[in-house]
Formats: sequence, C-alpha cells, structure tokens
Amino acid sequence: LKMNLPGQEEFEVSSACENVPTGELDSGPGSGPNPDGPSDTDRGELGVPKDPLLFIQLNELLGWPHALEWRETGRWVLFEEKLEVGAGRWSVPHVPTLALSSLQKLRSLLAEGLVLLDCPAQSFLELVEQVTRVESLSPELRGQLQALLLQRPQHLIQPTGTRPCQGSAHPREASHNEEAPLKEQRQNPLRRKLPPGAEAGAVLAGELGFLVQPLGAFVRLRDPVVLGPLTEVPLPSRFFCLLLGPSTLGKGYHEMGRAMAVLLSDPQFQWSVRRASNLHDLLAALDAFLEEVTVLPPGRWDPTARIAPPKCLPSQHKRLFSQLREVKGPSARHGALTGDRYGHWPHAPSPELQRTGRLFGGLVQDVRRKASWYLSDFLDALHPQCFSAVLYIYLATVTNAITFGGLLGEATNGAQGVLESFLGTAVAGAAFCLMAGQPLTILSSTGPVLVFERLLFSFSRDYSLDYLPFRLWVGVWVATFCLALVATEASVLVRYFTRFTEEGFCALISLIFIYDAVGKMLSLTSAYPIQSPGYPAYGCFCQYPDLGGNESQWMRTEPKDRDDISSMDLGLVNASLLPPLECVQRGGHPRGPSCHTVPDIAFFSLLLFFTSFLLATALKHVKTSRFFPSVVRKVLGDFSSVLAMLLGCGLDSFLGLATPKLTVPSEFKPTLPGRGWLVSPFGANPWWLSVAAALPALLLSILIFMDQQITAVILNRAEYKLRKGAGFHLDLFCVALLMLLTSALGLPWYVSATVISLAHMDSLRRESRACALGEPRSFLGIREQRLTGLVVFILTGTSIFLAPVLKFIPMPVLYGIFLYMGVAAISSIQFTKRVQLLLMPAKHQPDLLLLRHVPLSRVHLFTAIQLACLGLLWIIKSTPAAIIFPLMLLGLVGVRKALERVFSPQELLWLDELMPEKERSIPEKGLEPEYSLSGDSEDSELMYQPRAPEINISVN
Amino acid sequence: LKMNLPGQEEFEVSSACENVPTGELDSGPGSGPNPDGPSDTDRGELGVPKDPLLFIQLNELLGWPHALEWRETGRWVLFEEKLEVGAGRWSVPHVPTLALSSLQKLRSLLAEGLVLLDCPAQSFLELVEQVTRVESLSPELRGQLQALLLQRPQHLIQPTGTRPCQGSAHPREASHNEEAPLKEQRQNPLRRKLPPGAEAGAVLAGELGFLVQPLGAFVRLRDPVVLGPLTEVPLPSRFFCLLLGPSTLGKGYHEMGRAMAVLLSDPQFQWSVRRASNLHDLLAALDAFLEEVTVLPPGRWDPTARIAPPKCLPSQHKRLFSQLREVKGPSARHGALTGDRYGHWPHAPSPELQRTGRLFGGLVQDVRRKASWYLSDFLDALHPQCFSAVLYIYLATVTNAITFGGLLGEATNGAQGVLESFLGTAVAGAAFCLMAGQPLTILSSTGPVLVFERLLFSFSRDYSLDYLPFRLWVGVWVATFCLALVATEASVLVRYFTRFTEEGFCALISLIFIYDAVGKMLSLTSAYPIQSPGYPAYGCFCQYPDLGGNESQWMRTEPKDRDDISSMDLGLVNASLLPPLECVQRGGHPRGPSCHTVPDIAFFSLLLFFTSFLLATALKHVKTSRFFPSVVRKVLGDFSSVLAMLLGCGLDSFLGLATPKLTVPSEFKPTLPGRGWLVSPFGANPWWLSVAAALPALLLSILIFMDQQITAVILNRAEYKLRKGAGFHLDLFCVALLMLLTSALGLPWYVSATVISLAHMDSLRRESRACALGEPRSFLGIREQRLTGLVVFILTGTSIFLAPVLKFIPMPVLYGIFLYMGVAAISSIQFTKRVQLLLMPAKHQPDLLLLRHVPLSRVHLFTAIQLACLGLLWIIKSTPAAIIFPLMLLGLVGVRKALERVFSPQELLWLDELMPEKERSIPEKGLEPEYSLSGDSEDSELMYQPRAPEINISVN
Repeated sequence: LKMNLPGQEEFEVSSACENVPTGELDSGPGSGPNPDGPSDTDRGELGVPKDPLLFIQLNELLGWPHALEWRETGRWVLFEEKLEVGAGRWSVPHVPTLALSSLQKLRSLLAEGLVLLDCPAQSFLELVEQVTRVESLSPELRGQLQALLLQRPQHLIQPTGTRPCQGSAHPREASHNEEAPLKEQRQNPLRRKLPPGAEAGAVLAGELGFLVQPLGAFVRLRDPVVLGPLTEVPLPSRFFCLLLGPSTLGKGYHEMGRAMAVLLSDPQFQWSVRRASNLHDLLAALDAFLEEVTVLPPGRWDPTARIAPPKCLPSQHKRLFSQLREVKGPSARHGALTGDRYGHWPHAPSPELQRTGRLFGGLVQDVRRKASWYLSDFLDALHPQCFSAVLYIYLATVTNAITFGGLLGEATNGAQGVLESFLGTAVAGAAFCLMAGQPLTILSSTGPVLVFERLLFSFSRDYSLDYLPFRLWVGVWVATFCLALVATEASVLVRYFTRFTEEGFCALISLIFIYDAVGKMLSLTSAYPIQSPGYPAYGCFCQYPDLGGNESQWMRTEPKDRDDISSMDLGLVNASLLPPLECVQRGGHPRGPSCHTVPDIAFFSLLLFFTSFLLATALKHVKTSRFFPSVVRKVLGDFSSVLAMLLGCGLDSFLGLATPKLTVPSEFKPTLPGRGWLVSPFGANPWWLSVAAALPALLLSILIFMDQQITAVILNRAEYKLRKGAGFHLDLFCVALLMLLTSALGLPWYVSATVISLAHMDSLRRESRACALGEPRSFLGIREQRLTGLVVFILTGTSIFLAPVLKFIPMPVLYGIFLYMGVAAISSIQFTKRVQLLLMPAKHQPDLLLLRHVPLSRVHLFTAIQLACLGLLWIIKSTPAAIIFPLMLLGLVGVRKALERVFSPQELLWLDELMPEKERSIPEKGLEPEYSLSGDSEDSELMYQPRAPEINISVN
Repeated sequence: LKMNLPGQEEFEVSSACENVPTGELDSGPGSGPNPDGPSDTDRGELGVPKDPLLFIQLNELLGWPHALEWRETGRWVLFEEKLEVGAGRWSVPHVPTLALSSLQKLRSLLAEGLVLLDCPAQSFLELVEQVTRVESLSPELRGQLQALLLQRPQHLIQPTGTRPCQGSAHPREASHNEEAPLKEQRQNPLRRKLPPGAEAGAVLAGELGFLVQPLGAFVRLRDPVVLGPLTEVPLPSRFFCLLLGPSTLGKGYHEMGRAMAVLLSDPQFQWSVRRASNLHDLLAALDAFLEEVTVLPPGRWDPTARIAPPKCLPSQHKRLFSQLREVKGPSARHGALTGDRYGHWPHAPSPELQRTGRLFGGLVQDVRRKASWYLSDFLDALHPQCFSAVLYIYLATVTNAITFGGLLGEATNGAQGVLESFLGTAVAGAAFCLMAGQPLTILSSTGPVLVFERLLFSFSRDYSLDYLPFRLWVGVWVATFCLALVATEASVLVRYFTRFTEEGFCALISLIFIYDAVGKMLSLTSAYPIQSPGYPAYGCFCQYPDLGGNESQWMRTEPKDRDDISSMDLGLVNASLLPPLECVQRGGHPRGPSCHTVPDIAFFSLLLFFTSFLLATALKHVKTSRFFPSVVRKVLGDFSSVLAMLLGCGLDSFLGLATPKLTVPSEFKPTLPGRGWLVSPFGANPWWLSVAAALPALLLSILIFMDQQITAVILNRAEYKLRKGAGFHLDLFCVALLMLLTSALGLPWYVSATVISLAHMDSLRRESRACALGEPRSFLGIREQRLTGLVVFILTGTSIFLAPVLKFIPMPVLYGIFLYMGVAAISSIQFTKRVQLLLMPAKHQPDLLLLRHVPLSRVHLFTAIQLACLGLLWIIKSTPAAIIFPLMLLGLVGVRKALERVFSPQELLWLDELMPEKERSIPEKGLEPEYSLSGDSEDSELMYQPRAPEINISVN
C-alpha cells in the first residue's frame, strides 16, 4: 500500500472534497502531478493559487558549424529525463543535478538579456520575431537566426509500454491562431500522461558560431499557444527561453539550458516567475532558488551521478514551513513530529472515538452518520474498478475460507469444516457489508479466534462436553458482553492498545501459526512413518480366509480379468499381493508389518509443504521485482496463495499419491455427521453449563474486542482519506449479532480481518490520472461502498457448490500456506526488525529513525522485554491454562503502562506510541534539547521510512 | 572481489613499489585513506605534493544562556558523521550536504574575521590568546571568552565493535610543549583507524549571546600541536576555526561550522589552504570549491536526507582532468573510456602477450622472468595471512576434488573416481605451483574437461575400446599439440576470445552442469521408483525353496533368535516377510513387485538435493547480508559448499536411509578394479588407435587451450596489481606436461580453474591499514608466492587417507552442489543479465551503462544471436556428434567476427569487447558525436557498475 506524505495529510485531511466534480478533482488540490507544489495550498493557509503543470523541454542546437539541427535532449516535469543518444531512448527519470557555476552563468546572461513578460505573441513566428529584435544583431544575422529558430526540431518520441493513466486526458484546445500540431506530436504517448491544462516551457540552447556575443532571452507568453513543432507534445507553451552564443563557452550552453529547465520545474520558482512583473522579480526568484539549494561537495560526490527520485517528494509545505520556523522557533514543528512518525496519526484523530457519555450514544451516532451515506454506498460502486476488486477479493476470501475451514475442521474434529467455513463466510460477510459502519471490512475467521476455538474444543473434549451446544452458549455470552461494550462505548479504550500490545498480539498468533504448521507436518511423518532399512520385517500380503472350495472357485473364475501374477507365482491359493484396500474388498486380510505404512507419503508431503510455502513467498516477491509487465506482476503477487495452492494440487494429482486430503462432505450438510444446521441449545450438557460458559466467553470477548477494534482503527486511519467516516461501535454491534447467528448455526466465528480488508481498500483506490515522469500517482481516496463486499460474499456463498472439488487439496499444501501466512505476518512488524538488530553488529545496522534517537542499549532492552512477554505468553499457551491467554494479552497493556517507569516518554515515542494521558504531556516539555542540536533532520528523514501498515494482526 | 578505481589504476599500474618499506607504503601513494586526493599524484604528472590526512571535528557551544558547554557534534575524514544526541551514537558516515547559504555566510564571516596563517602557537592557551586578540572585544569579554574556549568539550567516544586495522598505527608524537592527552582520548578506538601522520582540524561554532557582532577566526598552525582535550583523538591540530556570534542567526552557526568542516575535508580546498599565504588565497580556495559543487534543486530533493557514501569515490584526477579537458577537448578522454569500461583493460595490456617471433620465444621469456622471482616466491609467503588462505583454499580444493571426483567416477563408470581425483589434484596442483608462470593458479578438473571426458568415455564404450589406454594416447597427443602451441606462441591469439566467446563457453558448460544435475536426480527417481497407490500388485515376500524336510528343520532351529512373527502368522513354512537382502542371505527368493523398490528414497533424495542447493545459495548470500560480525559472515559465505555438504550428510545419516552414496575404494588403489596405477599403453586396443586418438586430442586441445588461457588472462588482469608478471606460455607448457603425467597414471586432466584461483588471490590481498570513517580500504596488491598453493596440495594429498569417510556422502547432495555451481556460474555473466532484460518492461530495466549507449533493440538482437548460438551448441551436444563441441566453441570466434558486419564498433564496444584490429581503429573516429552531447556522464557513471570479475568460465 502506498501511503501519502505526512505533510500532505496534515493540510488536507480536513478537506473532504466530495462535491467537486471528478474532472476538477483530478487537477485540483493534492491530486495533480504536482501534489506538493503551491497548487495544493489554495485553501487559505498560505494564499497561493494553484498553477497549471509545466512540461519543460530543452532543445539543443547541435552540429555547428556544418549540419545545424535542433534536437530535444532533455525534458522535465518533476524529474529530469535526458536523451541517451547512443541508445536512442530517454533515461530513467532522476533528480537533476546542476553545477553551481552554470546557474550563475545563467543568471548573468538573463540579467543582460531580453526579458519579455506577458508577450502577446500568438504563434511561433511572432514569438521568434519578437525574440530576435535585439540591437546586437544585424538584420542579416537576424534573418539567419530566425530561419534557424523556425527549423523543425528532432524529437525522440518513444512508444511507452505502460498503460495510459485511467481515462486519457486531452489537452485543452488552445485559444486561437495556433498551428496544427504534427502527427507525431499528437500521437506522442506522453501526451496522455500529462493532465488537462498542462502547459509547456521550451528552452533552446546551443553554440552558434556566427554570434559575437551571447544572446539570452526569457519570454512569458500572455496567452499560452502551441508553438508548432517546437515541443514534442502539442501543449500550449507558457515560457520560452533562448540561450545562444559563440563557441567560447563549450558545453556551457547545454548546462545553462539544463539549469533554466530545472529552475522552471521548481514549483516555487515557477510560481514567482508566473507573477514576475520585471527582470528584477525574475532574478529575485532565481536568487530565492539559490538560497534553498542543497550543495554536495565535489570530492565526495560525483556530480554526474544519477540520483533516483526519492520515494516521497519533500513537501513544499516544509519549504514554506522552514521559512516560518525561523520566526516561530522549534516548538512550531512539534506537531509534524508526533503526527508523522509512523505515517499515521496515533489513534487520536478519529472523532468517532470520542466518548458521548450516553448509553449506546456511540452506536446511535454511528447509525445516524452512516444512514446518510446509505444510498451512495451503492451508487458509488458503479465503476469498472469495482469488478477487478471483486475478483481479487473473492479469490482471497475463498482461499481464506478453504485454509481456515480446513484447519478448523481438523482442530475441532469436524465440528466445523470447509463447508461451514464457506457458508459462514458468505452469511456473516454479506450481513456485515449490509449493516456495518465500515462496509469495506472483510470478515474472516481470523487467527486469534481460530486459536481460541481449538483450545475451547480441547477443553470441552477433556471434560466430555457436547461441543456445539456449549459453544452456542459461549457465543450467546460473548454477544451479551459485546453489546455491553457497545453500550458503554468501550471502543474508545482502543487507544490504550499501543504498538507494544499490537505487536505482542500479532507475534503470538503468528508464532502459533508457524508452530502449528510445522507441528502438523511432523505429525504427518508419524502417521506415515518412514521405513528405515534396518527394520526387521517387511512387506505385506493378502491372505484369504480358508474357505476350502470357495477359494478354488474364485481362482477359476477371476484369473483373466486381472493380472494377478503374484498369487499364481507364489503357488498359493490363499494369498496374493493385492494392496490392502483391494484385499479387504475381496474379503481377504492384509497381513504383514508394511500393510499399514504407505511409502513415500511422508517425504512427498514435506516436499509439497515446502513447495507451496516457498512458491507463495516467491510469488509475493514478484510484485516488487523488475520482471514482467506490471499487470502480470500484480496478478502473480496478489494471487500468490491461490497459485501456490493450485501448483501444489497439480503436483499432487500428477503423481497421484495417497497424500492426506481435505475432508469435504459430499453433499450440502454439516461436516459433523448427524447434526442439523441448527444447534440444539443444550444437547447432552447439563443446564448449568449455559451459565458456566460465561467464563470462557469473557476471555473470548476480550480477544474479539481486541482483534476487532485494533483492526478497525487500522482500517479507519486518516491516511486512507475515508470521507464517509468510521463506525467503531456499529461494527462491534454487528459482530455481536453475527456471533449469535454463527453460534446457533454452528458456523465459525467472524471478526474483521486486517490484511484482506486492507487489500480490499487498496483495490478500490482512487488515484489521480496524471502520472508524469518519475512521479508516483497521488492518492485521492477509496471508493467507499457496500456493493463489492456484498458481491464477494454472494459469490463465496454460491461457491459452496464447488466444495466437491476441494477434496483434491492435499493437507500439506494447506499447511504450507498456513506457514506462509504466519511468516508473512511476523515479518511485517517492527518487533521483528528490532529482534534482527540484536544479530547485527552496530556498524551494519540500517539507518533506522529510531536508532538515531534511542540508544542502542535501550532499544535492545525494549526488545528483550517484548521477547520476555512473548516467552511468558508462550509458556501459558503451552500449559493446561492455555485458554486464559486472551487475559494475558490484555495484560500486555499493563506491562506497557509499567514501561513508563523504565523508559522516558521520548524513548517510548520512538519505540512505541504514547498512551492517551502521556500524549498530552509531551509537547510542552522535553524535546527541545534534541532539537537545538540536530532538529533539522528529524521530520525530513521520514521519507526513508516504509509507510506500509505495520500491523498485520489478524494473520490472514 | 573488490576492484580498484579505474582512475587509480590508470595512474598507478606502472609504479611497482616493491622496494618501499611497508610503513612508508601504507601512507604512501594511493594507499592512505585519501587514495584519490592530491596525495597520489606526486609522481610528476600534476606536481602536487602529498599532504597528511586531516581529521576534522566540529565542537558546538550549546546551552546558551545558562549551562554553556562545548560538545562535539560532528566529525569528518572523507564523509560526515554526526552526533545523534538522543541515541548517543555516531551516525553512519554519509556524504555531507550543505545549504548554499551557509557557505556564503561563512565566506563573508571569514572575509571580515581574523585569519592567522602559520600561527606559531605551541599550546591551546597560546592559540586562544592569539585568537581572542581582536579589537571588537572588551578586555572583560575577552577574558570571559578565553575561559569559555578553554572549557573541556564533551566527546562521544564510542567503543567500536570492529577490529582495528592490521597493525595498529600510533600517531606521531608532536614536537614539543604539547599537553598530555586525556585517557579517554588515548583510548579512543578511532585513533587506531587513522594513519600515522594524520593531523586534526578543529571547528568551534555556536551562539554566544554576550557578543555584539559575529566573531570569525581561521588559524593555520605553523607546527601542528595537540590542543589538549579539544579533539576527541589526540592528534596534532593543523587548523583551528572559531565561528561565534549573537543569537540572531539561530542555527546558522551550526550550519556554518559544518560548512567549514566540509571545506576542510575537501582535498583540493585543503591543499590550497595549506599553501595559502593570505586571506585572499583562502577566499579564492573557497570560491574554487563553490565553482565545483553540485547543486540539487530544493523541490526535488530533501536537503537533510542522508546520502550513503558512493561505492567508489570520484577520482580527484577527474576533477583536475575535467579542467584539463576544457582545453584539450573530448578526445583526451577516450583512454579513460575504453580502458575503464569493464573495470579492466581489455586483453591488450599484458606485455607477456606480445609475440617474440622466435620458436619457444615466449616460453623462454616467461622462464627468464619468473626465475628472477623464484626465491622471493617462497620468502614472500612468510605472513600470517597465508595461514588462513591455506585453510580456505584447502577446504575449497577438497570440496572440488570430492564433487568432481564423484561425478567423474559416475560418468566414466569408475575409470576415474574420488581417489584418483585426490591424488591427481595433489600431484598436478603441487607440480604446477612449483613450476608455473602464475603460481597463484589453482588447478582443477574443470567443467569443460569433465564434459569432454564423459563424451570420450561414452564414445569408447560405444566402440568397445579399452578406455584408459585410449585416453593415454589422447593425452599424449594433447600434450604434443599444446607444446606446438607453446612453440608457436599461440597464446597471443587469446585476444581474439572476446567476452562473446567467453560467455558462450561459460553458458554452455553451466547449462550442461544444470541439466546433468537435474537429469541425474530424475534418474534416481527411476532407480528408486515411487510406488503409486493404483499399482495393481503390492508388497514383497520371501519364499524359500521347497526343500521338504530341510525347511521344517529351519523352522525348528531358528524361531527363537528372531521375532519372525510374520512367517508364523501366515501359517506358511515356505514364506516370510524378511527384507529382500536378508531373504537372499537365508537362501530364499524375494517375490513380489515391491521387492526391488526401496520406499522413500526418491523423495528423500529430492529433499537432500534441494536442501543442499538452497543452503549453499543462502549461505553464499550471508556474506553480503547485514547479520553477524564480518568474520562469521565471511566463514559462512566462503565455506558455503562445505557447510551445505556437511548438513546434507548429517541429515542423511540422521535418518539412516539407504540413499545412493559416493563410491570410494576401501583401500589406496585405483577405483577401477584390477588396474595398476600405471596405464598400459595399448591394453586391448589395436595399435592404430594410438594414431587415431589424435583426432579427439585435437578437440580436447582446443578446449584446454581456451579454458586455460581465458582463465590465465582473467587471473593476470592489471587490476590485481601483480608485480611478478604473468607466464602464459609457461603455464600452458606445464599443463601439457601434467597432461602426460595424469594420462599415464589414469588420473583426471587438469587446467587452471578461474573461480577458486580468484578466491586464492582474494585471500592474499594486501590492503592499506587505514580505514577511516566510511571509506573502503585501498588495495595494494597480492602476496604473490608459491608456498600457499604448495601447502594446499600437500594437504590435499594427505587427505587421501580421509577417503573412507567420504563413502558417507550421499550422491543427491553432490548433485545439489553441482547444480549450485552451475547456477552460480551462469548467474555471473553479463549474458544472463541481458537475457533477463528480455523479460523486463523497458520502464523497469536497471540503469545499465550499456543500455544508455546501445538501443534496446540492438541489445536484444545481440542477446538473441547469443541465444541462437547457444541453442546450436546445445543441439550439437545432444547429437552423436557431441564430441566435436570444442570445435563449435572455437566457431564462436568466427561468429563474433561476422557480427562486425551487423553491429557498429561502438555497439560492440559496449556489448562485447573489440577484437585486436578493430581496437586500433576506434580512437580516431566515431565517438565524438556522442560526446558532444552527453559526454559528461560516461566515465563518471562507471562507479555504479559492479567490478567483480564477470567471467566464471571454469564452473568450479
């Protein structure tokens, strides 16, 4: 998931622009290819109106003195692309680097040259006439120069392999009098990448021997016009700059041309020069640019090295901000620090999480808020993007249903199974999409609930309870507790779950996944033992009962229809070498120590397990590799689990070995034989058990509350720019109701799943059309609606009829996917990165932000405490008291509170997050000493931090 | 392998400095921590004498107005390290970035301030008195300021986890009068990283409210003295700079201090300022610095981002050179281009490869050249580094001997084997080390020879020849042909083997390795078939012959000594379920379809195969990971094959399955039963076969010549700075003699092995001691001697007695290592990278140098032609005519020649190398048009190219 710039967030999160028409939106605030430029600040803060995007092109005069020709050798929007003459292609976009001297030479040339602001020229011819009207030129030279300038330049128009941005933009038709653009210009694929309204700037530079002194001209056209074939894209040109001169400067004109182009591509310079009224303003803008440039020393940095575009552009606000700061002092910058640290606002911002103080007050507010959007929740789904989202999420949901259903079926000895998983997912998911506060959420029977259900099952088995009725009462109680939590608006407590708690939660569940996956694989090797060569007895044969005459009769009738050479060879009539199964079918008894061992299964299962795990991991990585077009990479990456599963099944069925397979009922009925769809309320259990079920229900409630609400907070983060608001209380209310339903039907329990819901949101991103050279598209928001989820779950429901196909899925493949899920989840948290730091010598540690601010020993101490907590949780999980683990997870909140005595607030700010009351106490004190020293680097270096969601709590 | 800077090469390759004492060497030309600074140009070219290294420290005044203290907040040698206050550690070294404005502010402060050049102060006190003697200060303020300046600064002295450089350097004792350094200063581990003779520069900056106007002072001390506790390392200080002033500038003083420090760390500024005689010179040096800085525009680059140090520093020569160029024009730069392109001089430079024109002229010259070094070849080995080199290369050699021996034994049906491989490696390797022109070469039975031997064996089997006598004659003929090649100095033709040929050679052999490894694994699955459940008959039992009375007797005597329940259960006396082997031992016949199948072996072998392949690959990658201290990483990376093999054996013996194992004779005798060590000259073959053997010998000679000489060229590249010269003819002569010997003894054939020889050289690198902050150590040369190789092969010889242990090595593990070798070899060539380009959309292609200069379609065409050649070679290899493949490899030279009609010389220069006659034709013409456009980027961007040897031709 690509996140947005924190700086941008800060200024834009308040402006929900739902009433702006789409066309306007795309070139509007924060959405154009210049999201950080002055254009997105036109809402009063700094009073800078937005400007059109500028495409700048450098045409160079080559071939002096013989074969003069203009050739486009560079182009700029945000970054520089230079012509690679030998290769005949454009370079990768890169950060332009300039020699300071060329900027200075440019400055003096401009100062002496011709500056025409608001030139009324309506065509290139007029413009050329105006530009060449300088005293230093004789009429003859002027004519020569004019002819030269009007010569058609050579453009390298490169067919791009990339898709055009969504909906190709057509540049606005320039007002009047313009020359018709050439065919190659019109067909330039670059044109579709530039947003409507974009303007061009042309820089012409070169060495021209017949001039006696340098000729510099800078023109701003009053009305932008397409200057014939001058620019490779037929955009109306706003700026025109001419830098010509005698040969004395050598490459100087090339560098000056580049410097001019880079200047024009700078938003602040551009802003100033659009408003400049005389030469003085122009030079002042150049000086302001110089004032802000970064300088690299010559001996340590090769000036011609190409620097890749940064992942996130530095915010233009910061430039303004840093100017403001000089007045306001360091404290003005604190907001940026606390808010930006993890690329999201820590917990606080949701107004939905403010306590109303009334019973069910939060729920009522949620319902009221969401009701007003209900119609639009369906209308907003009318977009082709939703189709691909449905396909993607449907496959992911089905994969989840199969994996979790298969494992749940195994864990509960068939009390639940794949069929229940499909049915439950469809019913609960669809209902949630129709009712919930955050309809983008995808419900799933997530890791923590799966772990708890397994413990509950083994508990009920240990005490010989009737599982499903017992479970029904647990569900009833959980629903009751959850409703109480909704009534008391307990969801606001979610702010006490800091990253420390979340990581403990996630790590424990991931480790259980990994442990279980490996454990189940190893238990397969005891179910299908490996026959070691030293084993004394060997083989298996089929012995028929001593039936006297019957047996000889069989010998006479049967020999032809099968090639039973072995029984004849043996000279025996009462024994053959039939496989055990067939032997039994024919009324014989398999005899011998090898009859119960199936060879090869153990190792083949291991191979399937590793293959599916490694394949899923590798395919996930394809997404970020350089290979294949982006569509292919996206498909391979997104469907990595499905593809790994398919390959595993293919391999298995190709060899046709008797690996253990997924158990699926052959018809539409509960997996457990002999039960109906409705669970009887008591079954074989005593009546008081329905009351006693409150105890495990309390534990499960804690788990469900934590899992549901942490996920909800992540999904409703400000960085996703959701405009219809969240519904924490309503979501929990829905989960409680669905708990009742699924318990009554004996279906799995469901809560919000982080990863798949984030994937759902990601597949519904709205992005700006423009995707200029080297710049990431800007994120506009999410298509918030209820329809995609609903369709996904309806499809999942109809997929129940696919169930018979599922019995071909070998269990080792499922275990492999399970391991992959656990490893992916545990790899995603910061805790893992800190554990890795323990193994790295200080010299080789990555330049993490937190290592810059917290002493290494303190970082290691924090990690060690987390490891100890995890160890304790693991020990509890391994004892008979395992079922109380949700209580212990809640205990992490207490441990975190106690950590405030060990670590300073600053350290906790970097290592974790602050708890609500501490959060308020920080801005006033404590951070300044650090600021006065190295304050300049703190917020800016955030651009090197990954901005993906760090918590992957639900492990699915 | 780390290579050196091309720029450095260019200037240094001619200066063999064998007579310089080591101490001198380490701070001498191109070896100090400032290899590119003016210091390495003191051999006349530019007339710049070398200067001592400068350690620069910024002490900042913090805590105004209350708790004033000086704290060290930054330090510089080549790169910047800043204090991370919160974390209490030094940042990673990074390229310093400055604001242009702070450089300008610094300039004006210096212009108005006090400049003392050649200040005679002998202590810090004297210095402080001199510096504060300015008019603007009242006597009272002066006293206050002096007291403040003399206050002891806070240093962060960080214990480093890294080893000190080889042999810790002690800074030279300053002349007189200096204060005794503090204990913490003396114990600073940084001190050992700075070379002897290093000097310090101290910059003091800060905000001081009681001053009414800024106070700037720049001091160059006449005699550097240790200024008490001023710098964290007790180095004599040469420069001192004071930048203090009232609070109006805010962070300005910090930035100005950084600017001053960065200026001082610039070699050219430092050079100028050491020689400046007045303020004007100082400012001129600053202006010269400004003239050369690189500028990054503010909107596209965050000025506070940390830039990692480049892999190679830009050459200082280039800075001088680029100034020269403005006079000389682009053609002056061509040398750098052609020479530097692949980080080595293409073929041409070796004077050893010049034809003498006399019979055996080259050989005589080689012998004469090497003879003069013969004694030093033993004395130079007296260095502890040679011990670790012996251990590393010994293990690698043994691994090779086992792998190749095992495979050769299998391929030749026991005509060769592991024992022969050990013996041959020891004898041939040791003899080569004693006689050869390049004694660092490690001989091995490499991939191409192995492939040929396999083909030769199957040929002789097809025609029922007596293999070893036939092979003897092939060897005799090969030796004859090779001697003829030596006599005619044919080795000079090696220059016609361009990268195209080398890559074709390497790719074919690697593919054969991969194909064979996979093929052998698959053939294991047919040797140990997988029993599918649908198989009609099943099991195996042991049937005893109908012996009448005997059989019942057996029943009576034996039942107690084994638990033969199965035979009794069956009620049969003539059958039991004994395993086949025991059954035969007891006189029975195993009956049934499963008797010949051993279960689980096929899949377990596959697991072993993948495990050893993946483990070897993963361990190889550990070397470049961030984890573990560098010693551990080096061990894991270097011994990846050995460790993978050990783990495979461990896994195998843990499960104790009957996997196929390496065949090793139980005593010291040839693997083939019934032959002596000496091969009989005719055996069962007709006499004329000894003449006919000349035909295959011709093919093998081509192969051996190509393999040996391409490797020799790679090993003797100029970048390794070998000072004892190469011996191409002598090497080939030795190979020919060893051919005779090994053929007569029936041992494998040997030629030089690229990879292991390069590893040998790498383990004998001589490097500079100094390793200042962020800078790679500079490479001085290789310990060229004959002893390490000799000891390695003596150890290999004694390891023959380890042979009985080798029979525990499972074959699938060897196949895994074999696959790893093939994959590693094919991954290392540029051809593979170009094949990968075929799969990448143009947008995602890496910014390769060749892609900047050659159109993509031409690159793809070249790759396609290579693929076609490879396909053709593969087809030939698969036909009965496979044995002629060496001729076809030679044919690649012809194909390459023909390519000159398809591709332009420039294109071939980038895609391949130029052939000798073309090489001369290029400099005159053709490259200029490209230069005039984008010439500035060509040679500089080389620093982004990996400089590891690209050819891995021998696949071992």
